Amino acid sequence: MKRKIGIDMDGVLADIEDHMLRAYQRETGILMTRDDIKGKAEEEVIADPELVKKIFHQAGFFRTLPVMDGAIEAVKKLMENYEVYIVSAAMEFPLSLFEKREWLAEHFPFISWRNIIFCGDKSIIDTDYLIDDHCKNLDFCKGKAIMFTAFHNVNKDHHQRINHWNDIHGLLKALETDELVMG
Amino acid sequence: MKRKIGIDMDGVLADIEDHMLRAYQRETGILMTRDDIKGKAEEEVIADPELVKKIFHQAGFFRTLPVMDGAIEAVKKLMENYEVYIVSAAMEFPLSLFEKREWLAEHFPFISWRNIIFCGDKSIIDTDYLIDDHCKNLDFCKGKAIMFTAFHNVNKDHHQRINHWNDIHGLLKALETDELVMG
Repeated sequence: MKRKIGIDMDGVLADIEDHMLRAYQRETGILMTRDDIKGKAEEEVIADPELVKKIFHQAGFFRTLPVMDGAIEAVKKLMENYEVYIVSAAMEFPLSLFEKREWLAEHFPFISWRNIIFCGDKSIIDTDYLIDDHCKNLDFCKGKAIMFTAFHNVNKDHHQRINHWNDIHGLLKALETDELVMG
Repeated sequence: MKRKIGIDMDGVLADIEDHMLRAYQRETGILMTRDDIKGKAEEEVIADPELVKKIFHQAGFFRTLPVMDGAIEAVKKLMENYEVYIVSAAMEFPLSLFEKREWLAEHFPFISWRNIIFCGDKSIIDTDYLIDDHCKNLDFCKGKAIMFTAFHNVNKDHHQRINHWNDIHGLLKALETDELVMG
């Protein structure tokens, strides 16, 4: 049986960072760059929870997210050897549910509806690996945690990390070799 | 830590049987009763997959499902002793995602978004119990399977079963006493 990999959407398959900063600029007139926010927690970057909600509830926000560089090719290649599940904490923003489903159908049409999970808390999702950008998910996952680099996690160092989708195959190979060596 | 229970929606929290039969009658003019379909597989009851799709894609179909008798009180009581997750295979019908989320917000507002999972295949959901009406989910679940009686499963006998939500507390108590006795 193939091993199972859970993959997060926002910040992992979808490049939400720039999209969010542009939405913030539209709402406030304030321009922030990727460098300005590096190392800050999400709630520090936009300290007003109502504004965050407003942005995330905008029709089309999730539907128009750009795909993370290299994600499509990497996921296709992973599917040759792993059972890939998309695991997104979409439940907090009900309007995002349909948009996220449509986004996946457009950019990742090769992923079956059977392999898509929209949830809240990810702690009951049981995959051998979880690729995610948030410690709140990675710290409690049942499988091996793989952190995908994002502005808010650059200072966290308690998980294995990839900075780009090109790095995933090498890391998985190393993890599985270690496992063989360690028994 | 509280034990975790996963609970299905259609046929378990939501009484889809009658609702489906009425939709079928509207589409075809043919009246079937609950007795007519007892013991039949779903695909026998409506043999035309296109018609099934048409019904399930109708705007409002999932939003207007009646709540299963006794479900609200039973779930409230379960939440006193268990961590309850709603686990619905909603992904096949993307339009249902928002309707199901809204339906839960109306009828089960006491369930947090953190505890709602819309998925395809349920085999990666790891709860101590799964209450569901379909063998395709119960046969592969990681926890103890509890079958909720529906027309299509009355002849299946390889899972513990409840016929009504009033029976859940007694069954769980019996299962946990057994476990204590068996060690």
